[in-house]
Amino acid sequence: MPQDKTLDDLFLDTLKDIYFAERQILKALPKMARAADDPNLKAGFEEHREQTQGHVERLEQIFEMLGKPARGKTCEAILGIIAEGEEIMEEFKGTPALDAGLISAAQAVEHYEMARYGTLKAWADLLGRKDAVKLLDATYQEEAATDKKLTQLAETSENVKAAA
Amino acid sequence: MPQDKTLDDLFLDTLKDIYFAERQILKALPKMARAADDPNLKAGFEEHREQTQGHVERLEQIFEMLGKPARGKTCEAILGIIAEGEEIMEEFKGTPALDAGLISAAQAVEHYEMARYGTLKAWADLLGRKDAVKLLDATYQEEAATDKKLTQLAETSENVKAAA
Repeated sequence: MPQDKTLDDLFLDTLKDIYFAERQILKALPKMARAADDPNLKAGFEEHREQTQGHVERLEQIFEMLGKPARGKTCEAILGIIAEGEEIMEEFKGTPALDAGLISAAQAVEHYEMARYGTLKAWADLLGRKDAVKLLDATYQEEAATDKKLTQLAETSENVKAAA
Repeated sequence: MPQDKTLDDLFLDTLKDIYFAERQILKALPKMARAADDPNLKAGFEEHREQTQGHVERLEQIFEMLGKPARGKTCEAILGIIAEGEEIMEEFKGTPALDAGLISAAQAVEHYEMARYGTLKAWADLLGRKDAVKLLDATYQEEAATDKKLTQLAETSENVKAAA
């Protein structure tokens, strides 16, 4: 019965959603690193790929804590966000605005993740799962730091300035 | 030739993307307000619908400043984010976790908008369009404030607590 569904179910559903999303991001980041022109941006994408691998592992730890198999659930949101990023890469390939477009695409990804991890953290807290809160917060902080670095690059990158 | 594309083109493309997105959000918010159980959440969605109308108008002002027709461009990202919100509304309808799910869906929307407005603001600044920066920043601040209110509701709403 639907009346039986509680915050536990919503938590698990959202965990599956971000697990699917993280693995999509893991595939998208090397393409973005290859496309980037600015070496700082390229290095940033490569570094974030490493971090993302760690985010996937933290999610697997949480599935284990819950005694559930680590399984993704198709996340239409991340598919849409990544599709837009690919469109930008195609349309702006070879133009001075490519790096600006890549930063923008990456920030849309980071913000999606911040929304999901923020929510999961709040729910884990309400559900009394302090073990999960700690892991979710660690990833949240890394996503927020990545977003901040991308903003700095957007404001200071010579490539972005040159496109203006 | 693609080599001709500059930050101006990327700015206009992204403006069309968020213009499309805002109008989708305008249609989604009344459904979310109707679905919400907590009166504070319901009122929050209604209030944000009013604000969103203002965001659409600000974007129209910017199109006018640029001497371009206000035209949207299909935004796969917002369609995916809204589709996920609708899935949550269906799956958790009539359950104690519905409000928590609605808050989560709304925060994914707000974060998408913060990413886009943040980017547009940075580009408008680089492009020397101080008139646009002001309008984009006003909307950015409202989206960020809405996200903050939603976090507070997620942490304090009796409905969300009851679902845990």
